[in-house]
Amino acid sequence: MSSYCGNIKFTVFGQSHSPAIGVTAEGLPAGFEPDMEELSRFMARRAPGQNLYSTQRREADKPEFISGLFEGRLTGAPLTAVIANTDTRSKDYSELRIKPRPGHADFTALTRFGDAWDNRGGGEFSGRLTAPLCIVGGLCLQLLEREGISVISRIAEIGGICDEGELLCSTADKDFPVVSDEAGERMKAAILSAKSELDSLGGIIECAVPGVPAGLGGAMLDGMEGRIAQLVFGIPAVKGVEFGAGFAAARMRGSENNDPFRMEGDRVVTATNNCGGILGGITNGMPLVFRAAIKPTPSIAREQDTVDLSTGENTKLVIRGRHDPCIVPRAVPCIEAAAAIAIYDALTEEKKK
Amino acid sequence: MSSYCGNIKFTVFGQSHSPAIGVTAEGLPAGFEPDMEELSRFMARRAPGQNLYSTQRREADKPEFISGLFEGRLTGAPLTAVIANTDTRSKDYSELRIKPRPGHADFTALTRFGDAWDNRGGGEFSGRLTAPLCIVGGLCLQLLEREGISVISRIAEIGGICDEGELLCSTADKDFPVVSDEAGERMKAAILSAKSELDSLGGIIECAVPGVPAGLGGAMLDGMEGRIAQLVFGIPAVKGVEFGAGFAAARMRGSENNDPFRMEGDRVVTATNNCGGILGGITNGMPLVFRAAIKPTPSIAREQDTVDLSTGENTKLVIRGRHDPCIVPRAVPCIEAAAAIAIYDALTEEKKK
Amino acid sequence: MSSYCGNIKFTVFGQSHSPAIGVTAEGLPAGFEPDMEELSRFMARRAPGQNLYSTQRREADKPEFISGLFEGRLTGAPLTAVIANTDTRSKDYSELRIKPRPGHADFTALTRFGDAWDNRGGGEFSGRLTAPLCIVGGLCLQLLEREGISVISRIAEIGGICDEGELLCSTADKDFPVVSDEAGERMKAAILSAKSELDSLGGIIECAVPGVPAGLGGAMLDGMEGRIAQLVFGIPAVKGVEFGAGFAAARMRGSENNDPFRMEGDRVVTATNNCGGILGGITNGMPLVFRAAIKPTPSIAREQDTVDLSTGENTKLVIRGRHDPCIVPRAVPCIEAAAAIAIYDALTEEKKK
Amino acid sequence: MSSYCGNIKFTVFGQSHSPAIGVTAEGLPAGFEPDMEELSRFMARRAPGQNLYSTQRREADKPEFISGLFEGRLTGAPLTAVIANTDTRSKDYSELRIKPRPGHADFTALTRFGDAWDNRGGGEFSGRLTAPLCIVGGLCLQLLEREGISVISRIAEIGGICDEGELLCSTADKDFPVVSDEAGERMKAAILSAKSELDSLGGIIECAVPGVPAGLGGAMLDGMEGRIAQLVFGIPAVKGVEFGAGFAAARMRGSENNDPFRMEGDRVVTATNNCGGILGGITNGMPLVFRAAIKPTPSIAREQDTVDLSTGENTKLVIRGRHDPCIVPRAVPCIEAAAAIAIYDALTEEKKK
Repeated sequence: MSSYCGNIKFTVFGQSHSPAIGVTAEGLPAGFEPDMEELSRFMARRAPGQNLYSTQRREADKPEFISGLFEGRLTGAPLTAVIANTDTRSKDYSELRIKPRPGHADFTALTRFGDAWDNRGGGEFSGRLTAPLCIVGGLCLQLLEREGISVISRIAEIGGICDEGELLCSTADKDFPVVSDEAGERMKAAILSAKSELDSLGGIIECAVPGVPAGLGGAMLDGMEGRIAQLVFGIPAVKGVEFGAGFAAARMRGSENNDPFRMEGDRVVTATNNCGGILGGITNGMPLVFRAAIKPTPSIAREQDTVDLSTGENTKLVIRGRHDPCIVPRAVPCIEAAAAIAIYDALTEEKKK
Repeated sequence: MSSYCGNIKFTVFGQSHSPAIGVTAEGLPAGFEPDMEELSRFMARRAPGQNLYSTQRREADKPEFISGLFEGRLTGAPLTAVIANTDTRSKDYSELRIKPRPGHADFTALTRFGDAWDNRGGGEFSGRLTAPLCIVGGLCLQLLEREGISVISRIAEIGGICDEGELLCSTADKDFPVVSDEAGERMKAAILSAKSELDSLGGIIECAVPGVPAGLGGAMLDGMEGRIAQLVFGIPAVKGVEFGAGFAAARMRGSENNDPFRMEGDRVVTATNNCGGILGGITNGMPLVFRAAIKPTPSIAREQDTVDLSTGENTKLVIRGRHDPCIVPRAVPCIEAAAAIAIYDALTEEKKK
Repeated sequence: MSSYCGNIKFTVFGQSHSPAIGVTAEGLPAGFEPDMEELSRFMARRAPGQNLYSTQRREADKPEFISGLFEGRLTGAPLTAVIANTDTRSKDYSELRIKPRPGHADFTALTRFGDAWDNRGGGEFSGRLTAPLCIVGGLCLQLLEREGISVISRIAEIGGICDEGELLCSTADKDFPVVSDEAGERMKAAILSAKSELDSLGGIIECAVPGVPAGLGGAMLDGMEGRIAQLVFGIPAVKGVEFGAGFAAARMRGSENNDPFRMEGDRVVTATNNCGGILGGITNGMPLVFRAAIKPTPSIAREQDTVDLSTGENTKLVIRGRHDPCIVPRAVPCIEAAAAIAIYDALTEEKKK
Repeated sequence: MSSYCGNIKFTVFGQSHSPAIGVTAEGLPAGFEPDMEELSRFMARRAPGQNLYSTQRREADKPEFISGLFEGRLTGAPLTAVIANTDTRSKDYSELRIKPRPGHADFTALTRFGDAWDNRGGGEFSGRLTAPLCIVGGLCLQLLEREGISVISRIAEIGGICDEGELLCSTADKDFPVVSDEAGERMKAAILSAKSELDSLGGIIECAVPGVPAGLGGAMLDGMEGRIAQLVFGIPAVKGVEFGAGFAAARMRGSENNDPFRMEGDRVVTATNNCGGILGGITNGMPLVFRAAIKPTPSIAREQDTVDLSTGENTKLVIRGRHDPCIVPRAVPCIEAAAAIAIYDALTEEKKK
């Protein structure tokens, strides 16, 4: 099922070229008054058409709340928000029904759903479907902020170029969300270079939740790693998720990787944070930190090898249309959204006791 | 919740020193006749006490099916299997209630559950709780085998030493599950060396599902990556999961990372498998491949820094008892179990249509 | 949660006066081509404004599928259908925020959700929200028809006047869905009489599923009675549900109530059907039969006793607006919808094996 | 699935003659110290072998907590309790595999699960499986008591003989749980009379929750009626559930059935309670009241008509073994258990906000 079923439940719906996309969500608190300006600013961070580094399509991405909102507050009934699909050029996608794009869901979706699948614009596999995720995530971010919990993130790497410095505060106000603007400039140059070569780049996003309280999560399937990963892998193009030192921890010794406890005033902290703020699946009060690997945009303008499903023969494909040479900058708020949902969900559970 | 709720549902229960551990599962097919010998062999692969590289505790790990099995076949009713806890030395753990072990759940579980938490042997956070996971997973492996689908895996890396060669067939019959026995010898030496230094090692496990059919999974939260990751992160000590090229894909260009389609007879295949057999969250018929990062065993015999929760002061801790210097070899079948559950679950869903 | 979470999952959303009402559903089969004319006819049976016996409000109740439908077929992605709210007179409901209507959710919803609750038109407690239920249910009815399974129903009783004859075939084509039109005339007269006295009537709806296959459902919480009842009680105004002889069975002896088995050709049937086609929670192949008690419409034009929540004093209330003097005729398709969902859901599960 | 999946989740497991029966539950609060004496007393009310009116089988029904309990308190990890099956006479049931008992699940379970079904003692359809339900329910009853909420019930009717007087306080201490002992004597006489005629009786149980707070539940599928009914119909032999006036409400006029609000001190109450304490699916603070119809025990000693599934011919059956001539008295605590789970579940949800 395409639904998230925790204490919060939601289903993202819509295809790239259906009348609308949106989300139906339950479990957000009655009486909560979302800051719609703030939500718009958050949504704008993933919207296309902003600069040279992303696709030139224009999408308002303006959610209309058709249910569950009254006089600016959540009523307690299921919330449904929709975004109309307007700027769609359906003709671009007709060929792809028989010539699946490498790296895309065309072949697998046709295998799974058969002819009925709506492949226009990639159907429900379009990155556009992260907009509804950002609606729920944006609301959860605001709910977390009210508890003093911020979710921050940055581009940690693009095309092998690493950001520099530590992620200590939000990069949300930046045009290009990195800590080191100088490193950011090099990343931008790399993106433009790949674009000019009709190619694309991937990267890594780092996300941190500095103020998360200790005691969220639980053992095994209740653990925060799995709960967050389930949502983060829900974002198209994510191919890896690691917490704290992650894969690097696999190369450490126990004596290096273990984070020693120590007192900081009357608070228990750890000297290092290799565990990414999670021990035994439960937050330990240190910043929760994870990284997500984003693959390079599969839509590239170069000719690629593929097959013709109507003839069963090998063929070539040139993808037309406007595509992001690097999806990483626009994926940053999506990662924050996914993290915010998982953490707010765990916080809700905590209160239940 | 500590339950998995897909088409198959199960809850792992028990603590390290409770009367028993076990699992209650629903959704496995009525009439299925498990090969109990095969299940025992599978369970034995994660059991402790087998060799120098793992703990010397002896645990029979013999599941007793107290419900849902009749004359050797599943009845269709919920299945419950239990493993009695026998070889427990509760006195070893008394000190840890006030001096949490670095890298362990002691501090976070006490924060979450309070004094009521059963910390003996790590409670429900013990690696021992992967035994019930292996019961369900072992049954799913057999069910997949009947459909011609094998789940294979290997130690890809321990302490920075990489296995060599490709993972093409099962390593389950090997004492040390690697492709290159020579690399395996070097890993074993590294483990013994770390052990002699009162330290521990982590590593990486690679898992592949060569015969998985195309068409399992779906978009976003229905994607196979998230469904597998949710289960794999349920295994204690896993801190990272990546599919196909994973984090390495983040450093590739689209033209490198995209797997070109081509015909192989009348079958659509891809020339490379950077996507790990999953496109748009749906299997493409190529081997499903993922890797899991396992942190080094946190229980090491060296003195470590921790805090005394009763006094609020910094202190030192020496962990006593028998512990694995490297949990990676015993984690291999657990990873297979987690993968098997996710894939059989998706296969069940497929049939529903 | 306001969601149904079986093999099919759906969430009904919207309030009586929100921009729209609708439903988001998952688990209906990709490739299914709904007969939209048929769905409209089904929806029309619960729509208001049809005759003297129901409210004179006009609502098109025309669902727009904004997601999950492509070229007339279900794509396999989540389905969302919305119905715009147009003919709303919000001013009618302002007083009710402080003077809760007897028999309505005004008082309880304000207690549960506080000031944020959207009470206009009864909010999410309005009978209008059964329209989205009828969208999902109407699709399930069509899916069942394709398997040769019909869901039929009738008004069994209104205001103490019983229908006559047995429910053997559909009454859907009738203006007033009873078996005996003569009994129906007496019911209509009773409704008009109650209406003229500024009062309302309740009744009982009988629903049968003649072609349901044996073997759907399971023990205890998997039983068809509970699965159907959960959905039927989701329809506002339902206060009782009984299967087969139901409450009458409680007064029989075992020798009377037990349905003897016998062969009919090579098929096992029962001589009577006191169990309503369900034994041990599983269908036995005889018609599945249940009855639902519908309370009289709480909105009556008479002056009633209530309280003023702003002053904490007893007061009087006269409800204005247009209301059904008897909701039973319009509830008939809703009951069919609920039954169809539960049965199609169980059928889907069956296929999964 | 045979699981309940609310804020509390549990799965009842076991068959009548499997090694054990039991329950795995999640979501009960860490730190809760159950009164085991109290639980035993509660369990004893449904245990067989107590008097002339029930079966003479002896079952200790002593739950052993093998997980989730430490030093008398819930640890926060999943709770599993098992009851060993000891007094079983498997030979009694061999014939029933080919001659299904009228009124039992034999035929339907064989249809659903095939030959693999464990029919000994009725398998998972045995009334014995209500014991694990009473473990969870008994714990929820204690948790509710701590919030000042009692769940009380009585036999309202057996064999057409009605109890007299109102259900105002618990009948749990009585040997025969009725308000009027005189009416109870007549019921007992009717049971013995039916028994002497090799027959059985059914009845109706009334359950009330006087101290339930206003504001639990929600619209449509979130409504308390459906949430309670789902659990109550999970008890074998329940064939009808009605809330408040229930089916009688269907014969009232709105002016009769509506419960007028009025102030009682500073509390909003209703003059009557035809709605059974639930309006719009949400508790209104008046006693929550419902009734469940229990069919007569299908196992009667008389010869009955059935079929021989091996030959496809009509045949006769005489059921041997010890059976309750009337299950109603033993079902009373099961009804309380089901109600307690639903209400505690809703209360937990309430706290979450």
